[in-house]
Amino acid sequence: MAHVNENFTKLKKNYLFIDIAKRIAAYKEKNPDKEIIRMGIGDVTLPLPPAVVEYMKRGADEMGVKETFRGYEDTGRGYDFLKQAISDYYGKRGVKIPLDDIFVNDGAKSDTGNITDIFSEDSVVLVSDPVYPVYVDSNIMGSKQIIYADATAETGFKAMPNPSVNCDLIYLCSPNNPTGAVYTKEELKAWVDYANTKKAVIVFDAAYEAYVGNINLPRSIFEIPGAKTCAIEMCSLSKTAGFTGLRCGYTIIPEELKAYTSDGGKVSLRDTWTRRQGSKFNGVSYPVQCAAAGVFSPEGQVQVQANIDYYMENAKLILSTLKSLKIPCTGGENSPYIWFKTPAKMTGWDFFDYLLDNIQVVGTPGEGFGQNGAGWFRVTSFNTHELTAEAMNRLKHLLN
Amino acid sequence: MAHVNENFTKLKKNYLFIDIAKRIAAYKEKNPDKEIIRMGIGDVTLPLPPAVVEYMKRGADEMGVKETFRGYEDTGRGYDFLKQAISDYYGKRGVKIPLDDIFVNDGAKSDTGNITDIFSEDSVVLVSDPVYPVYVDSNIMGSKQIIYADATAETGFKAMPNPSVNCDLIYLCSPNNPTGAVYTKEELKAWVDYANTKKAVIVFDAAYEAYVGNINLPRSIFEIPGAKTCAIEMCSLSKTAGFTGLRCGYTIIPEELKAYTSDGGKVSLRDTWTRRQGSKFNGVSYPVQCAAAGVFSPEGQVQVQANIDYYMENAKLILSTLKSLKIPCTGGENSPYIWFKTPAKMTGWDFFDYLLDNIQVVGTPGEGFGQNGAGWFRVTSFNTHELTAEAMNRLKHLLN
Repeated sequence: MAHVNENFTKLKKNYLFIDIAKRIAAYKEKNPDKEIIRMGIGDVTLPLPPAVVEYMKRGADEMGVKETFRGYEDTGRGYDFLKQAISDYYGKRGVKIPLDDIFVNDGAKSDTGNITDIFSEDSVVLVSDPVYPVYVDSNIMGSKQIIYADATAETGFKAMPNPSVNCDLIYLCSPNNPTGAVYTKEELKAWVDYANTKKAVIVFDAAYEAYVGNINLPRSIFEIPGAKTCAIEMCSLSKTAGFTGLRCGYTIIPEELKAYTSDGGKVSLRDTWTRRQGSKFNGVSYPVQCAAAGVFSPEGQVQVQANIDYYMENAKLILSTLKSLKIPCTGGENSPYIWFKTPAKMTGWDFFDYLLDNIQVVGTPGEGFGQNGAGWFRVTSFNTHELTAEAMNRLKHLLN
Repeated sequence: MAHVNENFTKLKKNYLFIDIAKRIAAYKEKNPDKEIIRMGIGDVTLPLPPAVVEYMKRGADEMGVKETFRGYEDTGRGYDFLKQAISDYYGKRGVKIPLDDIFVNDGAKSDTGNITDIFSEDSVVLVSDPVYPVYVDSNIMGSKQIIYADATAETGFKAMPNPSVNCDLIYLCSPNNPTGAVYTKEELKAWVDYANTKKAVIVFDAAYEAYVGNINLPRSIFEIPGAKTCAIEMCSLSKTAGFTGLRCGYTIIPEELKAYTSDGGKVSLRDTWTRRQGSKFNGVSYPVQCAAAGVFSPEGQVQVQANIDYYMENAKLILSTLKSLKIPCTGGENSPYIWFKTPAKMTGWDFFDYLLDNIQVVGTPGEGFGQNGAGWFRVTSFNTHELTAEAMNRLKHLLN
């Protein structure tokens, strides 16, 4: 008799963003003529840069010709041309990443969700609260024990290590989703030292690294000395280059990174992940890998930066609007997310409905990200200038 | 202290096909001038049909234009245009598949490997021996107990249910990888009845369904009455349409399919899988979904069938060669795989090296698929006419 994995019954019924999509759909059905402005889910609105489209079409054409057709990738870990481009991208910031440490994937979400598979079920997993729900959900599915590190307004929404707390796995996200907080090098160093001391592994989510404009802030955990013995980095082209619908990202697992067996032996996590992926993944679509290479081409880098600048203009407008309304807020400076306190002590979900009903603006309730998110709200800078400005006007009129 | 999931230490060090790739690479390094003919890994050689390339490029173009750009898919389960095409494809054979039962994926391997996640760790998993190694490896990673059903030459390499054996999860593959054996409707009915009696779930791998030319043989388990309460079907466009490098497949989980909780409750497996994918997957690249829709277009169907016919010509030649050599063999008739007994009682791995060293032909040792594969060998019909003919000539000279 087939029994379900009962860990699934411990989850919230729906993934947060599917919940939100349902609420929007219900509202639209009742109010088909209202124009909704979406600043909720972190989806981009600008089309793919021309270089990306061109590289992808070239890849598609190659697949239609016998001499250049490509079937299975030997390793499923990504073609060298793309891994080299990624390695060079890190190289520009002085970070050395060997090609063998790079795993190209179909977006960071898959690897972020699946990485827990290679760790023991006895693991204690530390996540900051508020937190991107995938870290929590995937570890509940995987039978792990989850503990929280508080990230509150008092500390700029940056959780810091507590030496008296023991854990095996740590999820960090900087620039942070949902709060937009960005760790300094010194703060990240504290985490790296803590992890090395505890022999714990940090899963570092760098999905928003491209939004860090301040050159003094780290964009990769591997800018921090000692990180290669304690960290896995996950990155994505979704927000960097508008790949939310194209699906490509990468995971970096240093050769130096080990985990332990119950008899005290050491195992390479890079090899373990390679083994998992060998049985459960078959690589990223070749034309998509070509498109990703387009992102790292000289013309692609210019086009991608223009899009990021465009979104950061939106972030500036949102921040200045919230500040003019005297609403406490964070993020939006080296991050596409702006995180702010709901007015009148509303819960995030009440405020969600309030905005949707009154001004048809969609954001994400802080409650969706954990206890410390209660009474806070996330909006993104990924809409158009026009709609962002319109949303901010509506917000001003509503709250003034 | 981070501990590894020790189930990984119970696996063979390498995934079978990565092992083989390494042996070939080592041979090539020593013999750079020898022309190797690959009939090992089940990879196709014909380029993508023109309709597929055209649909994909159209999708890529849409992504470069503001008005038609697509970001995240709301559900990540596939666009309706593709799910409708898949549903219509089943409809042609009289099988009704509602769109909500279809999950579009990045190739069958991911879902085949990950599906075990939604079942209890206490599950007893029945797989036939020989077997596609992913079924076994993914269930070892997932802490399941694996039992085997013998598929031997005596039964045409088709495992059949034994009412005195209890199990919770059953993996079937027809047309079979590696043996090429194809279940009849009556035989599949016996499995469906067995599964319904035991309240077990069948994971039916239909990756090679497009190769079934005999209209009396089932191409989907859902052609069998009662299957919707006991079966999940996995399918792929890899072999159907040359998508090994493009990555697209689909999983069908009927609304009717339930699993049990420890207190005797029933849970929808479709909902459980939806929840898993909601946290761990973000959908298939839009242009790849367009390419997949191209497969199901009228012109795509004609082009795809021409490629299948091409490969089946190879299968015919391989079969006739083996028969002329009086080598016992199966498959090759409604399947792209041909499975044959190694000559002179060699082990599969010895025969692998013998062929590679003497005639530079690569196949797959039966040992890679399980105990009952010992002394058998798999070759595929996916190479070109020219190289298949050349390989068969070399084989004739070697073994005559």
